[in-house]
This record gives sequence, structure tokens and C-alpha cells, in this order.
Amino acid sequence: MINELKDQIIDLSIVELNKLIKNKDLSISELAQIYLNHYKKFEPKVGAWEYLDQQKLFDQSKKIESNNSFSDSLLLGIPLGIKDIFFTKEMPTKMGSDLFLDFYPKYNSPILDIFKKLGSLLMGKTVTTEFAMNEPTNVTNPWNKEYSSGGSSTGSAVAVSMRMCPIALGTQTAGSVLRPASYNGIIGFKPSFGVFDTKGIFPVSHTLDTVGWMSRSIEDIAVIFDMLSSRIHTGINLTDNVLNTILNGVREFEKQIPRIGVVAAFYERESCLEIQANMFEVTEKLSNFGGKIEIFKLPNSFIGINEARKIIEYSEAYTFHNSFFREHIDSYKLNTKTRIKSGKSISASDYIRSLKLVSQFRKDIKKSLENFDVIIMPTNNDLVPKDRKTTGDSKFQSPWSAAGLPAISIPSGIDSNGMPLGIQVVGNFLNDYKLLKVSNWIKNVINFDIGAPSLLHE
Amino acid sequence: MINELKDQIIDLSIVELNKLIKNKDLSISELAQIYLNHYKKFEPKVGAWEYLDQQKLFDQSKKIESNNSFSDSLLLGIPLGIKDIFFTKEMPTKMGSDLFLDFYPKYNSPILDIFKKLGSLLMGKTVTTEFAMNEPTNVTNPWNKEYSSGGSSTGSAVAVSMRMCPIALGTQTAGSVLRPASYNGIIGFKPSFGVFDTKGIFPVSHTLDTVGWMSRSIEDIAVIFDMLSSRIHTGINLTDNVLNTILNGVREFEKQIPRIGVVAAFYERESCLEIQANMFEVTEKLSNFGGKIEIFKLPNSFIGINEARKIIEYSEAYTFHNSFFREHIDSYKLNTKTRIKSGKSISASDYIRSLKLVSQFRKDIKKSLENFDVIIMPTNNDLVPKDRKTTGDSKFQSPWSAAGLPAISIPSGIDSNGMPLGIQVVGNFLNDYKLLKVSNWIKNVINFDIGAPSLLHE
Repeated sequence: MINELKDQIIDLSIVELNKLIKNKDLSISELAQIYLNHYKKFEPKVGAWEYLDQQKLFDQSKKIESNNSFSDSLLLGIPLGIKDIFFTKEMPTKMGSDLFLDFYPKYNSPILDIFKKLGSLLMGKTVTTEFAMNEPTNVTNPWNKEYSSGGSSTGSAVAVSMRMCPIALGTQTAGSVLRPASYNGIIGFKPSFGVFDTKGIFPVSHTLDTVGWMSRSIEDIAVIFDMLSSRIHTGINLTDNVLNTILNGVREFEKQIPRIGVVAAFYERESCLEIQANMFEVTEKLSNFGGKIEIFKLPNSFIGINEARKIIEYSEAYTFHNSFFREHIDSYKLNTKTRIKSGKSISASDYIRSLKLVSQFRKDIKKSLENFDVIIMPTNNDLVPKDRKTTGDSKFQSPWSAAGLPAISIPSGIDSNGMPLGIQVVGNFLNDYKLLKVSNWIKNVINFDIGAPSLLHE
Repeated sequence: MINELKDQIIDLSIVELNKLIKNKDLSISELAQIYLNHYKKFEPKVGAWEYLDQQKLFDQSKKIESNNSFSDSLLLGIPLGIKDIFFTKEMPTKMGSDLFLDFYPKYNSPILDIFKKLGSLLMGKTVTTEFAMNEPTNVTNPWNKEYSSGGSSTGSAVAVSMRMCPIALGTQTAGSVLRPASYNGIIGFKPSFGVFDTKGIFPVSHTLDTVGWMSRSIEDIAVIFDMLSSRIHTGINLTDNVLNTILNGVREFEKQIPRIGVVAAFYERESCLEIQANMFEVTEKLSNFGGKIEIFKLPNSFIGINEARKIIEYSEAYTFHNSFFREHIDSYKLNTKTRIKSGKSISASDYIRSLKLVSQFRKDIKKSLENFDVIIMPTNNDLVPKDRKTTGDSKFQSPWSAAGLPAISIPSGIDSNGMPLGIQVVGNFLNDYKLLKVSNWIKNVINFDIGAPSLLHE
């Protein structure tokens, strides 16, 4: 391999790594070794991983290396972090719970089998909050260890932020991909509800759970989307030609002027001043760059959507845990216990009304979005909390989880505490590709390089 | 028109009436007048209609007569009875409730617009129980006025039984089409859940409500199914050729030997002796005629299905009525009040578990039915109740409402009280055509002519 590149490897994107691998400038086991060395050095500082077996990982990389059937895949040899609520038959699956200390599921979550088919290196399991709820973890925010690192996909966010893997999987029921991504200065993406199967993933709420992923590059986010969806299911092999189509597709909006709706009302009213200022700055840049910026009016059914979403989540979570919970109540952590209990007293009628409101909101927002390519708003209502006992507030992310819309969080600044800020871009239902394209345009216009977290240079 | 036929007109099926109309042996207004005369004579004895304006009806028949655009339709001029929970903008829609004495909805239930498009004569609204629940009505069972006439589509069942219309619409959430059909000696049909829109129909339960209809002929039932479904939506005009296809389709199983599963277990255990004897007789006939009869084993998820169905219905009904109910509680009748109130205390968790059980049952029963053309069982667990204060027990019909399967009830005998008996035939999900074909075969094999109710000759 090219020796002078060695130190930069961990900063490269999937697309860049793939070029080195395809040109045989870098072998898959060399890549694995670089990541392993990096992991050994930094994992003790952040505690992002629940499970990673170094020897097994290296063996896995050798096996992929000797197998030629993945040669067309963009994910060939690419290390993947996996939130520890995805079932893995060769790694323990703890789901953040002491009840599952040595649990090896009988099958992999099907989405992981796709990654394996594509030659990806399943690196290990990242820390999740208990059952993907709101009990904080010990994962350290690498920008400043006194601050929250978010929840529930916090391990994945920190692993990506610390360059321990170029991509990592999470799940979002309220805001558990986008919020930790924002808190840790990376990109988080939640596709449209229902596009990817959540089979083999420990459920929080079957009406809301969505697989998502994180990276430091929108192109990488888009590549994963593309490889997991159409191309996989149609069985088309990825060639350079297809690769160029993806990349050009993601870039094509540079030549177009997107119609962008700025969400006011609730999002403006509930944001703190620094968030408002950052949002204003972003909007000004987009406008100066020719973006067609208009105020986006939220439909009336937005009122009460966060409450309805909670009722659905809590009812379904309680139902799922119910008998298990009664038997093992003492092994649940405090916040999880309280959250699950709160689902017990919800009436069928409130649940049905909440489903109806969500269904109405989905209809209304889909219609409102017809005149826009995307809408934007801050990812969070407040700065990263200087409080490790909270995973943060999901009220700015959760309406889009309720709506089932694709959403992405992009770093957009640094706050007065030196912590990352993010903006959230939301697309119409099933318009995931368009969202990714326009987000890339927006990212280029914002042109803000958030850099690496301070802990990476300590 | 052929004068000697005049007295027999009310006994004819849609298909037979259509021939007379097409050959100009009978005009549409003559047909309307015959039905009106019959209505005037018999309606005072049974009280099956909530609304019927004789002058408007005659005018409507004249209008259809002068309009040539329906000439291909099998429903041209055919009188239709409409359960009074279907919205009609030109007729009041009472829904069995004193709260809706002069309610004219702003639009027709879309399914009625299809009937209108096909030149059908919208005859009037038939009596329903209050909001299609279980408060008994004053409708008289024409076989014996001391017995229950069933619920909730009782008016439609009695109107058809008394030859006041050849077909009538009802709805089934538990057993409200098949049970009154059976109690009144006619045929009732509930198609697969979701095939027909329930828009513009006052809801009981959005997870369960299904449009159904009644007639004295399986061919008529099939013609309606065919006209409401594929042919309508594809815009194909009905020609003699298409008509023959339908009729041959319905008849074709005469040449085949259907595989019939006899449901034992629950259905045998819960049937009274007379019902068991009738069922045995039917099975023997089918077997003697070459039917491949096998015992059909209910899947384990059948256990608790009636309870789960109730939880879903009551929760959704309460949710729908909720605010309205609180304001007008005194205007609700006793059984309705009790039923709605019982939905109030159901927990979200029980509701979600019930949805899951129903969903599991739907999967299981679909698989179990793969080896059968249809399954059969008694329509009712008990004889027609000699008690006008009950609408009867739905426990034998409601599992198939929960399963969303197409089901039909066919007269199969007369009990020791001189009241009709029925058997229920159930097909696999979306196999409605096959169900209708096999049911026609079964009806011909049973070869039992139930005749007319005694009240028709008084």
C-alpha cells in the first residue's frame, strides 16, 4: 500500500477506500489492521463498543480478501459498526440490558446479511441505551467528555465520530439516529419508514422503528442507501458505471436550484438563541447561493404529533415487554422501567386516536411537501446538554419519525461551548434519493468543515 | 309485458329480471310499480324499511328508463335495498339513532354511486340496529313473528326474504350480514376484507367493517360481486358474452369436485344438537355427491380470536363515538350505551395484542386453507332465538370477520320450530370467486328449497 497514505486512511470515505482497494493499493486485511490499531488506541477513551473481537475481526478480513465474489461491491472490506440491538448470530447481542449478557440470536438481522453479501467487514457491536430507550450510557462525547453523547444509537455515532469505522448502523423511533449524529458532529440519516425491514432488530415500536445509519460523508450515506435498496433487490452488480451514476446522481443538484422550505412556527419558537442564529446563517447562505427559500407552514395536524408519537411508542413498547417485564422488573434500569410502565395505563382509545392523528399528519405533510424539494430546520431545539445523565430531547426529530419521512442531520457549526450544531433536512415520503441529492447541495453551500473531535488529537 | 308473469316477478332473480328488461317484455317503471305494490301490501307486516318514498321511487324508475347509458348493465332497473348506515344524499340517513332524525349526508357512499352508475334503482333505506350495534329493532321475522330477525342488517335481510327487493346491502363487523340472512332464510355474503371501500358508511370498527349483501340466489350474489369489483374499475361494458362468463364461472364447479374442509372442534362442540344434525346431513350429501370432504383443523391462533375481535371492535367503536357519546349519552339506547362504554376501559396494550393475534390468525388460516377450496360449518351455534329482545349470537360468524375471509350463508334446512337453518361456507383471502363457485355447487348438492316465509302468504 501507499505508505504516505497510511495515516490518512481512517479519514477516508467509503468511496475513497474502495478506489484504493480496487486498485490494490490497499488490501482488506491491511485496512482492517489500520482500523484495529486505531480502535485499540481510542476505544478506552470513549467506550463506544459493546463487543469487538480483534482476532475474529482480522480473520474475517482475511476471509473476505480471499473471496472474489464481492469484487464489484463498493462495500468490499468496509468496516461497519452495528448498534447492539441488531441480532447477530456470531456476536453477542446485549441490547444494553443486563438480562442479555450472553445472548447469541439464532439468526442475523436480514439487513446484516445484505452487508455480508456485499463483502462488508462486520466490525462489532456499538453501545446502545437499554432496549434503545432513554437510560443514558457511559459512552463519552469525543468533543468534550462533560457533555451528553445522545441516545439511543450513541455508540454508533461516537464510533463514526472517532473514525473507528466509516459507517455505522443505528435505529430511530423518535430521534435516535439524527440526534446523536448531531451531538457528535457527524451525519445521520433515517430513510422513509418501511423501505428497510426491521426484522431481527429488537423492537421499540413497530409503527415507528426505522433503520438508519451514520457517516461523515453524504456520498457514503447515499451509497449505503442505494446498495441496500434497489440494486440489492434487483440483483444488479455494481460496476464503475453504476457507481458513477450514484455519485453523479448525488451531485446532480449542484446544477439545479432546489426549492427549500424553512420550517418556522414550532421550530423557531422552541429553539434557543444560538440554534436560531445558526439556522439564520444557514438559510442566508442557501439564499445567497440561489436556493429558492420559502417559509414552510406546518399543517394543523402537526399540533399534538409529538404527544401522539409518544403514546404509540410507549403503548407498543409496553406491549412488547409486558410479560418479560413483569418477570424481570428488577433487572431493568430506572429510566427504562419508568418508560415501560408509562405505557401500561394508556387506553386503547388514546392509542387509536394517536394512530389516526399520525395517519392524518402523514397525509397532510405529504401534500404540503409537494411544492418543495426538501424542508429544513435545526436538528435540535437546544445545544448539546452539559449533562451526561440525559440522552437529550427528541422533540425536533420525532415529528419526522412519526411522519415516516426520510431525514438527515448535517453538521452546520460549532456552538459557544465548542460543541457541534446540526441542521436537519427532511424530504417527502419515499423521495429518499432526492433528499440525499439536495442535502449534498446544501452541505456544499454551507461549506462548513466541522473537522475532527478534540479527543482524536489528545 | 307478459301478463301471466306478473305475479311471479317478485320471485325472479336479477339475472331473470334482466332478460325480461332487455327483451322489452318488462319496462323499468312497470317493475318498480310491481315492487311498490308488493311493498305497500307487506311492509306494514314486517317494518323492514326505515325510508322509502313511493313517488320519488317511481320518478327514479322513469328517469332510468329514459336514460340509455345503462343498457349493458345487469343491474338496469334492479331495486336495491340499502342498510340505513350507508350515506345517501337524497334520502335521510338515520343509522338507527334518534340523534339523526333528519340527517342528509353531503355525499353518497361511493359504493352507491357505482350502483347508480349501473342503472340500479335505489329503492330505500332498510332498518339497522342503532349504529349497527346490538340494540334489537322492531323488524319482524317473516317466518314467525315471535322470533328474532337478527342484527344489524336485519331490515335488508327481511326485505329480501319478503321479496321487497331482489338484493340488499348490509355490513358485517362480527356477523351482521350472515346471521340475519340465515335467520330469515336467504343468502348472505361478506367479501374479503378491503375489496370494497367502506367510505361513506357509518363505522363500527375500521379494522373489521365489511360491506356485504343478501339475495335469494347465489348467481345474483356473484353478479353483484363481479359488477362491483373488476368490471367496474376496468370500465369494461357488460355484454352477453361477459354475462355468460360470469354465470359459467359460477357454475363451472359443477363439473369439478371441490375439496371441502369441515370445521370441527369449536364449531362442533358449541353447536346445539339440531344444528349438528343438519350439518351432518349436509356433509353426507356433499360426500355422496363426490365432494372431497376432510376434517379441517383450526390453527392454534383461533383460540381467543372472538375475544380479540371484540376488543378491537369495542375499542374502535368507543374511539369513534367518544366525544359525540359524551355529549349525547341520553339519546343512546341501552345496549348501544353499554357496548360503547365497554370500549372505554380497554388498554392500548390489550388492543395491540388483539391486533397481533388477529394478524397471526390471518396468516395461519390463509396457510391452512391452501389445501382446501372452501371450509364449511354451521352459520349459527343455535336455532333462531325465540326472543325478539336479542339480535342473536355472532360467535360462529365473527372468526371469519376477524380473519377478513370471504364467507357466505346458504339455507340448509328448517328446524323443529319451522325456522330456517343455514350453513356457512368460507373461502381463502381474496378467493371470493372460488368461494362463490363452490358455494353454488354446494347449494345445488344440498338441493334444499327453503321456499318463502309464511308471512308472504298470509
